[in-house]
Amino acid sequence: MLARMDPIREAQRQWVAHGWADAADGMALVTSLVRVHQLVMERVDAALRPHDLSFARYEVLRLLSFTQDGQLPMAKLGSRLQVHPASVTSAVARLEKQGFVRRSRSDADGRVVLAAITDAGREVVEAATVSLNTEVFEKPGIEDVPGLTALLSQLRAAAGDTVG
Amino acid sequence: MLARMDPIREAQRQWVAHGWADAADGMALVTSLVRVHQLVMERVDAALRPHDLSFARYEVLRLLSFTQDGQLPMAKLGSRLQVHPASVTSAVARLEKQGFVRRSRSDADGRVVLAAITDAGREVVEAATVSLNTEVFEKPGIEDVPGLTALLSQLRAAAGDTVG
Repeated sequence: MLARMDPIREAQRQWVAHGWADAADGMALVTSLVRVHQLVMERVDAALRPHDLSFARYEVLRLLSFTQDGQLPMAKLGSRLQVHPASVTSAVARLEKQGFVRRSRSDADGRVVLAAITDAGREVVEAATVSLNTEVFEKPGIEDVPGLTALLSQLRAAAGDTVG
Repeated sequence: MLARMDPIREAQRQWVAHGWADAADGMALVTSLVRVHQLVMERVDAALRPHDLSFARYEVLRLLSFTQDGQLPMAKLGSRLQVHPASVTSAVARLEKQGFVRRSRSDADGRVVLAAITDAGREVVEAATVSLNTEVFEKPGIEDVPGLTALLSQLRAAAGDTVG
């Protein structure tokens, strides 16, 4: 019989055996987070693939579609999505090439670059949301979803995020 | 006063307002996972930077150092680390360039490529483990570390991982 094992539990045992007991639980947590992120992103990517979107680009479109006039300054996009300005620039550049976003200078302040969602962008983000909702978000894989989200919020708060 | 808000909680409200209540909790969970992964990896990368290692390369060295004779077939390395063969190949190639791993053909079966940790590899993985333990794993940022790891294990199990 093939002995299957949990590689994270096995690493935890090794940590204790090497005298790093104080760090064993934290190591298991971080390794579990990396693994779960990988598993969840595989499902997210599969749901978004037919729409030719990455999760980063989906989040840009989603956020723009929620604003009153469908546009935001690039800097605000980055701070709302909590990602690096360079990542926003590359996501928006790709979205513009796809015809889902248009960039322009603000009339009020020529130094400000605005990103605006197009009609095609609105269409694709609605379709992608349906895919994500039915294929991923409505089937999270565990019962206590709010409990897990609350524990993750504690981690976010400890790192300085505003939560609640 | 600047009104700070939790962007994930805000998205959850939007989901409910758009009639996607059934998917709102799952959306918040997935988005929280992505954010926590990003925050934790920033800390991991900072701890590993002085050792010129990524977490993927660290995990390869850590696993090899735990084996009896410091080597494993490439295919086994991939299955133990639960990553794509192409990722293992690129991590090991980089580690070989750094002098931390040596690749060779198995004497028993010439089709099998073995990855073996070098003395320099053993040295760097011990130093990197001390950094990770003190800077990240011993300061996870929440109290109920085993509780969070257990909930993440449920997600892993639902996706087909062996856990426990």
